[in-house]
Amino acid sequence: MQETNLYTVSIPPMIKALSALSGILDKLSSHAKGKQLEWHPAGMQEEALLSSRLISDQFPFIRQVQVACDNAKVAAARLAGIEIPKFEDNEKTVAELKARIDKTIAFVKTIKPEQIIGKDGIDISLPYWGGKHLTGFDYVTEYLMPNFYFHVTTAYAILRMNGVDIGKADYMGELPLKD
Amino acid sequence: MQETNLYTVSIPPMIKALSALSGILDKLSSHAKGKQLEWHPAGMQEEALLSSRLISDQFPFIRQVQVACDNAKVAAARLAGIEIPKFEDNEKTVAELKARIDKTIAFVKTIKPEQIIGKDGIDISLPYWGGKHLTGFDYVTEYLMPNFYFHVTTAYAILRMNGVDIGKADYMGELPLKD
Repeated sequence: MQETNLYTVSIPPMIKALSALSGILDKLSSHAKGKQLEWHPAGMQEEALLSSRLISDQFPFIRQVQVACDNAKVAAARLAGIEIPKFEDNEKTVAELKARIDKTIAFVKTIKPEQIIGKDGIDISLPYWGGKHLTGFDYVTEYLMPNFYFHVTTAYAILRMNGVDIGKADYMGELPLKD
Repeated sequence: MQETNLYTVSIPPMIKALSALSGILDKLSSHAKGKQLEWHPAGMQEEALLSSRLISDQFPFIRQVQVACDNAKVAAARLAGIEIPKFEDNEKTVAELKARIDKTIAFVKTIKPEQIIGKDGIDISLPYWGGKHLTGFDYVTEYLMPNFYFHVTTAYAILRMNGVDIGKADYMGELPLKD
């Protein structure tokens, strides 16, 4: 049994990690509610976490989530050779970010394995690659997956640094362990 | 051309990311030297960065690097079905961590693609999985790669938070762009 192909190593793992990220957003929400004191402006803690970052010259949490979503959306479309749907980056709340994740997963799930399997040799070119390209395989293994996990982990790191009660299991999601 | 298999989606990307991490360690070193004042104990800045963490109940930088190395080492051995070499976790300096990375890469490179290709269906069991197992494919896509990139990104995040002059390109390494 060999099930490793360009689809199975990219799309399902990203769907899983985005679902896990949605669960992490719930924990952000609970944490924010627990820390919200009565004399704080409504939603102050949630807003503070969403705009938190590791250092001033890095994107904040909210943008890390948006970029992770876009990594998945853009890759699914590019690999399948279809038009990339445009999602606005206008999320300001946990509920909106969770909706962005849902919308991203819903789109990515419209791509069928057959639209990506075997695309190892196609040319993938990004606007800022100056006309150069990567093969589909190099794009997935050297660009997409390291980049995607970078943004999901950075989102996680920002919350972790802020004391949100999350652990690596929240990032990893459930493992399909068998007896 | 289909080059996606259990070896190509795991071992070469980890070797690449570990090499990039070695380059990041050089930047840690330069940064530490630049911040080292004459009245500081020798190596104070380097030591502070190596022991830095995002929050008190998370592993420090040095351990993130060790775990990333072990992710690669253990996975290569488990997938190839050979004994896992034992490396001590006794690194205390940048030079020693770079040597740990070199040693890890050297070991992982001894594994030949044929030792891993097609192992999608084998059982992989970790000591803390209570006797349960993952298939080789699930192990690579749902456990190994998310876990490995988590630790490399967390190591990066710790340095970034401390103002070390690194950017995502240092994490990604060079892309094999073609004309």
